[in-house]
Amino acid sequence: MTVGVWLVGGRGSVAVTSIVGASALRAGLVPGTGCVTELPEFRAAGLAGFGDLVFGGHDRVSTPLTKRAGELAASGVLPAALVRAVHDDLVRADADIRLAPAGESQAETAATLQADLRDFRDRYGLDRVVVVNVSSTEPLAAAHPAHATAADLNVALRRGEAVLPPSALYAYAAFSAGCSYVDFTPSTGARLPALAEIARRRGLPYAGNDGKTGETLLKSVLAPMFARRHLHVRSWSGVNLLGGGDGATLADPGANAAKSASKQRVLKETLGYQPQGAVRIEYVEDIGDFKTAWDLVTFSGFLGTGMRLEFTWHGCDSALAAPLVLDLARLTGAAHAAGRVGPLHELAFFFKDPLGDVAHGFAEQWQALTAFAAGLGAESPA
Amino acid sequence: MTVGVWLVGGRGSVAVTSIVGASALRAGLVPGTGCVTELPEFRAAGLAGFGDLVFGGHDRVSTPLTKRAGELAASGVLPAALVRAVHDDLVRADADIRLAPAGESQAETAATLQADLRDFRDRYGLDRVVVVNVSSTEPLAAAHPAHATAADLNVALRRGEAVLPPSALYAYAAFSAGCSYVDFTPSTGARLPALAEIARRRGLPYAGNDGKTGETLLKSVLAPMFARRHLHVRSWSGVNLLGGGDGATLADPGANAAKSASKQRVLKETLGYQPQGAVRIEYVEDIGDFKTAWDLVTFSGFLGTGMRLEFTWHGCDSALAAPLVLDLARLTGAAHAAGRVGPLHELAFFFKDPLGDVAHGFAEQWQALTAFAAGLGAESPA
Amino acid sequence: MTVGVWLVGGRGSVAVTSIVGASALRAGLVPGTGCVTELPEFRAAGLAGFGDLVFGGHDRVSTPLTKRAGELAASGVLPAALVRAVHDDLVRADADIRLAPAGESQAETAATLQADLRDFRDRYGLDRVVVVNVSSTEPLAAAHPAHATAADLNVALRRGEAVLPPSALYAYAAFSAGCSYVDFTPSTGARLPALAEIARRRGLPYAGNDGKTGETLLKSVLAPMFARRHLHVRSWSGVNLLGGGDGATLADPGANAAKSASKQRVLKETLGYQPQGAVRIEYVEDIGDFKTAWDLVTFSGFLGTGMRLEFTWHGCDSALAAPLVLDLARLTGAAHAAGRVGPLHELAFFFKDPLGDVAHGFAEQWQALTAFAAGLGAESPA
Amino acid sequence: MTVGVWLVGGRGSVAVTSIVGASALRAGLVPGTGCVTELPEFRAAGLAGFGDLVFGGHDRVSTPLTKRAGELAASGVLPAALVRAVHDDLVRADADIRLAPAGESQAETAATLQADLRDFRDRYGLDRVVVVNVSSTEPLAAAHPAHATAADLNVALRRGEAVLPPSALYAYAAFSAGCSYVDFTPSTGARLPALAEIARRRGLPYAGNDGKTGETLLKSVLAPMFARRHLHVRSWSGVNLLGGGDGATLADPGANAAKSASKQRVLKETLGYQPQGAVRIEYVEDIGDFKTAWDLVTFSGFLGTGMRLEFTWHGCDSALAAPLVLDLARLTGAAHAAGRVGPLHELAFFFKDPLGDVAHGFAEQWQALTAFAAGLGAESPA
Ligand SMILES: NC(=O)c1ccc[n+]([C@@H]2O[C@H](COP(=O)([O-])OP(=O)(O)OC[C@H]3O[C@@H](n4cnc5c(N)ncnc54)[C@H](O)[C@@H]3O)[C@@H](O)[C@H]2O)c1
Ligand SMILES: NC(=O)c1ccc[n+]([C@@H]2O[C@H](COP(=O)([O-])OP(=O)(O)OC[C@H]3O[C@@H](n4cnc5c(N)ncnc54)[C@H](O)[C@@H]3O)[C@@H](O)[C@H]2O)c1
Ligand SMILES: NC(=O)c1ccc[n+]([C@@H]2O[C@H](COP(=O)([O-])OP(=O)(O)OC[C@H]3O[C@@H](n4cnc5c(N)ncnc54)[C@H](O)[C@@H]3O)[C@@H](O)[C@H]2O)c1
Ligand SMILES: NC(=O)c1ccc[n+]([C@@H]2O[C@H](COP(=O)([O-])OP(=O)(O)OC[C@H]3O[C@@H](n4cnc5c(N)ncnc54)[C@H](O)[C@@H]3O)[C@@H](O)[C@H]2O)c1
Ligand code: NA
Ligand code: NA
Repeated sequence: MTVGVWLVGGRGSVAVTSIVGASALRAGLVPGTGCVTELPEFRAAGLAGFGDLVFGGHDRVSTPLTKRAGELAASGVLPAALVRAVHDDLVRADADIRLAPAGESQAETAATLQADLRDFRDRYGLDRVVVVNVSSTEPLAAAHPAHATAADLNVALRRGEAVLPPSALYAYAAFSAGCSYVDFTPSTGARLPALAEIARRRGLPYAGNDGKTGETLLKSVLAPMFARRHLHVRSWSGVNLLGGGDGATLADPGANAAKSASKQRVLKETLGYQPQGAVRIEYVEDIGDFKTAWDLVTFSGFLGTGMRLEFTWHGCDSALAAPLVLDLARLTGAAHAAGRVGPLHELAFFFKDPLGDVAHGFAEQWQALTAFAAGLGAESPA
Repeated sequence: MTVGVWLVGGRGSVAVTSIVGASALRAGLVPGTGCVTELPEFRAAGLAGFGDLVFGGHDRVSTPLTKRAGELAASGVLPAALVRAVHDDLVRADADIRLAPAGESQAETAATLQADLRDFRDRYGLDRVVVVNVSSTEPLAAAHPAHATAADLNVALRRGEAVLPPSALYAYAAFSAGCSYVDFTPSTGARLPALAEIARRRGLPYAGNDGKTGETLLKSVLAPMFARRHLHVRSWSGVNLLGGGDGATLADPGANAAKSASKQRVLKETLGYQPQGAVRIEYVEDIGDFKTAWDLVTFSGFLGTGMRLEFTWHGCDSALAAPLVLDLARLTGAAHAAGRVGPLHELAFFFKDPLGDVAHGFAEQWQALTAFAAGLGAESPA
Repeated sequence: MTVGVWLVGGRGSVAVTSIVGASALRAGLVPGTGCVTELPEFRAAGLAGFGDLVFGGHDRVSTPLTKRAGELAASGVLPAALVRAVHDDLVRADADIRLAPAGESQAETAATLQADLRDFRDRYGLDRVVVVNVSSTEPLAAAHPAHATAADLNVALRRGEAVLPPSALYAYAAFSAGCSYVDFTPSTGARLPALAEIARRRGLPYAGNDGKTGETLLKSVLAPMFARRHLHVRSWSGVNLLGGGDGATLADPGANAAKSASKQRVLKETLGYQPQGAVRIEYVEDIGDFKTAWDLVTFSGFLGTGMRLEFTWHGCDSALAAPLVLDLARLTGAAHAAGRVGPLHELAFFFKDPLGDVAHGFAEQWQALTAFAAGLGAESPA
Repeated sequence: MTVGVWLVGGRGSVAVTSIVGASALRAGLVPGTGCVTELPEFRAAGLAGFGDLVFGGHDRVSTPLTKRAGELAASGVLPAALVRAVHDDLVRADADIRLAPAGESQAETAATLQADLRDFRDRYGLDRVVVVNVSSTEPLAAAHPAHATAADLNVALRRGEAVLPPSALYAYAAFSAGCSYVDFTPSTGARLPALAEIARRRGLPYAGNDGKTGETLLKSVLAPMFARRHLHVRSWSGVNLLGGGDGATLADPGANAAKSASKQRVLKETLGYQPQGAVRIEYVEDIGDFKTAWDLVTFSGFLGTGMRLEFTWHGCDSALAAPLVLDLARLTGAAHAAGRVGPLHELAFFFKDPLGDVAHGFAEQWQALTAFAAGLGAESPA
């Protein structure tokens, strides 16, 4: 099975790390560390091999992939030798990262996006194309009546109205072109009733939102620990210092709000109450891609005794995110092939703010994910 | 169901916190925070109420419980008001903490221990007695041929030989008196083939070893996170600073070795390999009962990128341990009532170094525990 | 020498801790830990003894001192036994904490303040009165033309205009009543040309601003270390989590801005450049008076190698501040007696945002302070 | 003034980083970050320029400098581009790093060492040669009667006895060849009465011991802060995790003891008492040259309130040490030129365990150092 991976934000850090990594994995230059789908539990799931993934995408900028990869090597995200080794693959992929179109109307833009997707699928004779949004986080989008139903949305677009935030327009175009959609960002993406309806009608699966790579990942294992030891979490405060393109975007109060909300959900859902404290994101250019997150948890135990846990997470965001992008592309491609339609709740394991009313504990999400993979394996042709 | 809780080390910090806490819970002065068995999942398990627990024990020292409780209040482990409120209960319990006997031979000591246990059970008309070892950690015990079978052991004891470390002698006495046994310490306890045989023959359950309250608890949730995200843990180093009686004992290299080994097992078992790094325990008198543990984890992700997690745990050991002692007494008492015999693998959730070949991940242990509780509930008289 | 200590915000945490502490010191119940002026370097400076300090003040609330002290004991700031021991002193001092007047005009308010100060001095026959502002931090005050000269200010006040923020009005009243003034907060206080002029004319000393008790204290020793090792500080980011009355006030963006600015100055002044990064203050009720500050410093060394320092400061703000309030009262009282006039630059050691163009390094400030003390000693009657 | 820098352990990490760095500085490829002597305070001290330093040394191994530099680049200590840029200089210096001689007797070895030093000085026509010990830390050496006087020592050596640890033998050879000596390690070095006597007679200066680059550097600024704020340090515990060649050596209990003792001295000297707690050094291969040190300080303030400071230092040891090696060579060379004889107490700023009865506070040491530099400047030819 060949799977096209169409990256919205295809020249960003996460995208470039994903493309370089897939190339290196295909060439057998690196082990599958960081790729969840390379664990034994996924061996029988019939997923596309790294050699079966083809990359394309849209971006607002046109910096060559080789240049971006060089920058990521300079900042320690990618090994320089690896970047040199996959140079030719990067040059080839570069041609398939199109400039994000800006039509007269959103309808026109959507039409160009669809044409690009169809062209990509046809040229490479791909079985499926998964559109993965790894573009900059948008500000929280305003509600609009046209979001309610497919009919309302189509009417508004036909009238030339601009009713969708960019991430939702990409989801709209993906579904219209028969592609599945994954939102790795906290943006709106496919989370509108109108889009859900379109996906359902077209028989397409989708997943999201907001890749879970750092502080929230830790929360999803630590919060269940407190809950099941019956320890009362009194406050949970966090600060994320990060530079890089994503950091600059998130420093914007609008995007910051979207992200912080997505990061807090896990506590409420896992503990059953909202502890005091907030999560901040601060842009510090010098920190670059190696985000530093610091969290302080105060809790009380037996007879009310106060205690605390403090942690510092020093993770390379792009290196944490990229293998998950590959995982999601493989899993969503296989789900599409297996006829799965609508939100893929079982992929909650990968997201800070998962679709649907799902468990937020890491262990439950892992069980759901492996059961899902087992199901795919059972369905997949031997 | 009335359950006797016989605490070996009955005047130690953990024991006194357990007795004060049970009293306060019985009187409705505090919520059940920290008690796992007070979570909804255990409501139908037919466990003894806090009002049905009766405390006794052995200790090598005779400091009054009220004095020890006062000291714990002064150092912030127990609320002073609570200690005052349960004063009379402490005075009553004090009379049931006997001086640890020191007979001419181990056989003679064991006989006195049994007599004490039988007398306790009879005087209070208890349905079951659970012996819980919360005494000081012993040095690693030497192997001895008499540990192999019940017959060998009985012969050696009858000959007047001293072949058992204290913790195992308590287990021997417990089983001989028809009591179940829980080892909350990393000492030998019931972990000898001869003792397993005796427990089996007498139809008694037992559990252990080494209550999981701090750093290892965190390891049991964090190690699965790394494993399932396919992140490679390169090193995991830890240092535990603690004062108090337990700290002084553990500063002794022998006891330290027993404890450190028990703390490292979870990594090997969960990750499938042993990362670099060691765990140290340091005695710092000023730290008192509020242990500070610092851990550094270095790991690599996608394409080998190095990252790190650092945490500081500032926990009150006795406040973390005491509710688990109550949990274990309730659960083991119920298991005994339900006819469970031999090692209670399902209680692995509570231990650093659980009996048997069990999962070390927190979530799997939780599932095993709740399934066990459900089973008890099904069996228990309505 | 008797010194009156008039506390603006006399029922706040810092004030109450100061009053309890002075009482306990006078009674010989505690050693002078935390009091800089109890170090050998100050023995010959001729400072007032703790028995020579008399407390009074203004506050907007009328909660009894004994109640506030009880609350501080409950939250672990003050030892409960000490609070009981000084109960009678607290009751006595309570009568001298007046309700902050709210006159028809600022001129009228100032007149009442002066009358209160004069009455206090007369009733106790005090040699000097030092007014110390430990009231809630104000929002950054707007500039006003009347701040320029004493004449302009007097005209505006006589006209009934409200041109001064509260802290400056207290300074105005203090000077008018012949009292020296210390501002322990980041508020405006005496920092207006008009007030400087009045102090000069009346021959009065003053000091400030913003007691240096936590993160900034650390900065004032760490920044010189980087500077003198020629290490380049690239970023310095900090977050302060705190509850308590002060925390609630500082959560207000206006006050937060005043405080954060005051906290950053030391870096620029000591390093000669401003590193990236900011300081945040977050209100977390559960943290209470035991503030937790976390700082991350990234720096580069030889050949550009990047390194980092991270620290967590877990300090009790009131316990850190109160002894400095006593120090400042003693030193300013003695300076007044010695005829010192205008800003006391030598007290920079105590402040985050010291008056004048002074060194920000801890060691230089210490030298200036001890030289100052030596000077006072030389002048003081044997 | 040309200064020969003879590095004992010339192929170790610190040595190679020093040689690469001096080369890069000479070529103007990098700024002087990390070099204390590049601060304005040293401009007039008449120190040798980087172009005037010539490197040689002894080592027990013969791995080429270019290979060692390549390894340091791979592990992130040196920028790879810089290593390439100074390749020719490294090849040249390589020829001057001799294999450490192993004569039949220590006398014979010393003779070879002297011959090597003289040959080096003559070949390059050097004004002065400074021998700097940056070889592996030795185990604590046993006392010996021959250490008492120059006469005793010479007699013992002439008899063919082996009475000196290697570091002291190097100091002996250095002095005998008319070279000054700096010990950057915690080894014995010149710290024997016999060697002091020889240095005095030959009119040679020396300095040491144990470069202050990490945890102890922080202690030397933080301990004075506690002292001068009259805060009582109750415990100070530290753990140093490090890999690399130095880490492996220090994991040896003997060397570890030497180093840990040297690290604790600053507290006792600065505070006037020894707080509880110890310093541990742990070898963790994966940590490599980027040492991670974690310290916990518990202290009490006003009225006994307990507080804490915790810090994590993540420093590249070689990058911190190498510029100090250059500083020490420049300063000791200039001191030699200026006729300074005996221990250079004024260089205490650079050492964990400074020679003589000197202040351990960072600020006092800085003052002594800059006064020393000013003195040199005054003496140096215009
Ligand atoms: N890295 C992680 O760990 C992680 C985790 C969760 C979510 N995310 C999300 O992934 C996204 C990408 O992160 P990154 O670090 O690669 O950011 P980045 O800034 O390096 O890349 C974003 C790219 O998106 C492009 N872009 C912006 N708007 C676009 C549009 N309308 N159409 C097409 N391209 C557009 C930009 O030009 C840029 O190249 C962010 O939204 C981030 O919040 C990342
Ligand atoms: N507190 C925790 O979080 C925790 C977690 C896991 C295990 N443990 C273990 O629990 C045990 C108790 O800890 P603690 O803090 O209460 O220690 P403690 O020192 O306060 O109490 C131990 C008590 O055991 C008594 N004792 C010693 N040897 C005895 C013997 N042979 N017979 C009878 N009594 C004896 C001592 O006199 C003392 O009163 C330790 O072994 C500790 O390692 C504690
Ligand atoms: N604690 C520290 O370490 C520290 C350090 C530097 C500065 N400070 C400053 O000290 C001040 C006091 O701190 P705190 O913790 O005691 O705060 P707090 O909130 O406990 O006390 C402030 C008191 O000031 C009173 N007040 C407010 N406005 C007033 C007015 N106009 N006139 C008279 N009284 C007034 C309040 O009623 C309250 O009782 C704050 O401004 C704080 O920023 C404290
Ligand atoms: N890096 C720092 O921050 C720092 C700080 C203080 C002290 N030091 C000390 O500096 C020394 C060097 O550290 P490093 O990291 O370069 O260690 P390293 O292990 O990389 O280098 C030591 C070198 O010394 C050589 N050597 C050993 N014994 C010798 C002998 N008898 N004669 C000649 N050469 C010998 C070894 O072969 C090796 O090449 C250590 O003793 C260390 O404790 C380092
Ligand atoms: Na930390
Ligand atoms: Na920390």
